[in-house]
This record gives sequence, structure tokens and C-alpha cells, in this order.
Amino acid sequence: MDYYSSHISKLIEELSRLPGVGPKSAGRLAFHILNMPAEQVDSLANAIRSAKENVKYCKECFTLTDDELCPICKSPKRDHHTIMVVENTRDLAAYEKTGQYNGVYHVLHGAISPMQGIGPNDIKLKELMMRLRGDVSEVIISTNSTLEGETTATYISKLIKPTGIKVTKIASGVPVGGDLEYVDSVTLLKALEGRVDM
Amino acid sequence: MDYYSSHISKLIEELSRLPGVGPKSAGRLAFHILNMPAEQVDSLANAIRSAKENVKYCKECFTLTDDELCPICKSPKRDHHTIMVVENTRDLAAYEKTGQYNGVYHVLHGAISPMQGIGPNDIKLKELMMRLRGDVSEVIISTNSTLEGETTATYISKLIKPTGIKVTKIASGVPVGGDLEYVDSVTLLKALEGRVDM
Repeated sequence: MDYYSSHISKLIEELSRLPGVGPKSAGRLAFHILNMPAEQVDSLANAIRSAKENVKYCKECFTLTDDELCPICKSPKRDHHTIMVVENTRDLAAYEKTGQYNGVYHVLHGAISPMQGIGPNDIKLKELMMRLRGDVSEVIISTNSTLEGETTATYISKLIKPTGIKVTKIASGVPVGGDLEYVDSVTLLKALEGRVDM
Repeated sequence: MDYYSSHISKLIEELSRLPGVGPKSAGRLAFHILNMPAEQVDSLANAIRSAKENVKYCKECFTLTDDELCPICKSPKRDHHTIMVVENTRDLAAYEKTGQYNGVYHVLHGAISPMQGIGPNDIKLKELMMRLRGDVSEVIISTNSTLEGETTATYISKLIKPTGIKVTKIASGVPVGGDLEYVDSVTLLKALEGRVDM
């Protein structure tokens, strides 16, 4: 790529390492950045660096946050006896967007995946079990509906059962607004299995 | 977005200003960046900043480069009597990738677009005319095959004609490997118009 300036080549190279950014879109992004006002470029570079430097795990639920405790764990308005287990901070954000869940969370930062060599000790599972020594009435498992997510859910529920704490798992089924025609058969079977009285 | 740390929200906001990056992919990119090793994050932030700070226009052809003159304008191996006019540095790069063009370039940094209020004085056109005072045998116009690109091509050729310098324009037609069925009718007509003897 010696027809580009070395700084441009370097920028394209760095950008193309990001997920979903191929060489072509890295080029488009790079030239966009070169055309942005200098303050905006500074602001982007600073945001990248300071997010990495300042974001840490909440010492209670392990979500990514700025302080020792995240706003949710700090809030007296939340029900601290109900813990929802999610795989990552983005899943937590998805629930917060609904505005309807009032409990707290526990972020695993991954899921058990023997295929990828990720075992129970590689996710924040010990930390969850520690929290259950407190006053917890229900653990809602909300891992992804994937092989890894399901494995993790089963593993966690087996660990928790002996403690007598209630363990639930979110429902699988047809997405709201989804056309049955386009729903895959595994989802359809799950929806049928999980049918409820009307 | 107060369920995210303020640093994460800021990063997502900055990333979602980039072209083709919506709020969802900005989130995905942000969490990817948070999970990258610190050196890699530094390297990305530095690449962004230093590209913006160090890249300048070549004083001859106005492509984006690190030095006073770009490697192409500096090279004694290139034919400095043939100038190809392109809209931007990425178009130049596209030709350089072919490895077959041996002349030099002139980068306009835009195209004439009355709709967007971009006139002849807003692109590097005066600078092109200055270069033509030197020893130039041919100007190849290679602006995009869009309304703006065509307008610019026509405008430039009218300016150059009186100087007696040869002006050509790259051919429009069916892309190589393209299936006729999927080629739009304007392109088909252009290809027909530009038919050559076999």
C-alpha cells in the first residue's frame, strides 16, 4: 500500500482489525477521519483511550463501569434479592432498555464453551456463588439461546439448586412480531414445549 | 444510556459518528475495543491522531501524503507528461493497485455539484490549470461515472481544450466479469455507444 502515506496505511491497518471492518471499509473510515475537524479526531482518539483506561468491573456484579460499584448495584430502588445472570454488559443494557426489570445483575463475561476451551473458571461464576451467600431470593438465568449459553445455564442451575435458592430461566419462543413462516424449527419446537394456558 | 459507564457511552457516541456505523455496531466496536489489549488500543488511538496530524497534500498533485511531494510525483520512473485527474486519493489508489498506469495524477478532492453548492473553486481545479503550464502531453479525466463526476469532466475538458493539450476520458461500459442481465440500462447504452471494432 505504498501509494498511500505511511500514516494512512497504518490507520487503515489498525481500523481493519476491528470486528466487521474489512480493508475496504477501513479505507472509507480512514479517509473520513482525515476529513473530520481536528477537534473531532482528538475527541475520538481520547474516547478510545480513556474508555480503555477508566472502565473497570463493578465489584458486585462485574458489569463494566466507571466506579467501584455500578449505578445499578448502588441504587436503593433496585431489588437486590433478585439477580439476573447475563453473559455480557450489552445483554444487561438490552434489559435496561426495556425499563421493566427492577432486580440487579451478574455479568459472567462469557459462557462455558468446551470447544473454545472456556471452562467454568474462565467466567465470573465463583463470584456469582459468593454473592449467593447473601440474601438472594431468585436467580434468573438469561444467557444466550446458543449451545454455549444453554450449557452455561444448565451448569449454573445445577450449582445453585443445592442452596435452595429459586433458579429460573427466561423463556424461549417465537419473537414478538415474528412471522411463524420465518422462525426456525428449533425455536418453533421450544415455543410449543413452553406453551402456556390461555 | 446511563446503564453504561459514561466512558463507554462517550466511546459509543464517538464511534457512531463514523460513516456506516449505527448505534448497534458502535456498541459492538466499543466493547471490542474495551476487550483489546492496552497496547493495541493505544496503537489505534495513536494511528487516528497521527494520521490527522501528519498527513498533508502533495504540493504537486494534491494527494494525501506524508511529505512535501508524494512518492509518485517524486519518482523519476513515472511519466510526468501524462496527468490523470481523479476525485480523491482512494481513486488514485484503485489505479495504483492495477500496477499498469505509469503517468502521474491530479487529485481534485471532490467534484462540481451545484446541488451541494460545490463549484469549480471548491476543488483543486485552479491548481490543475497551473500544472498545465508545464510540459504536459495528455490529461486523462477519470472522475466518477456520476452526475457530479460527468459535470466535472465536461467542465475540465472545456477549460483545457483551448490550451491544445490532449484531453481524454476513461471508457464507460459493462464491467469485466459482469453479467449483462444485472447491468443497468444507462451503462448498457454507454457500452453500446462506446463499442469498438473487433
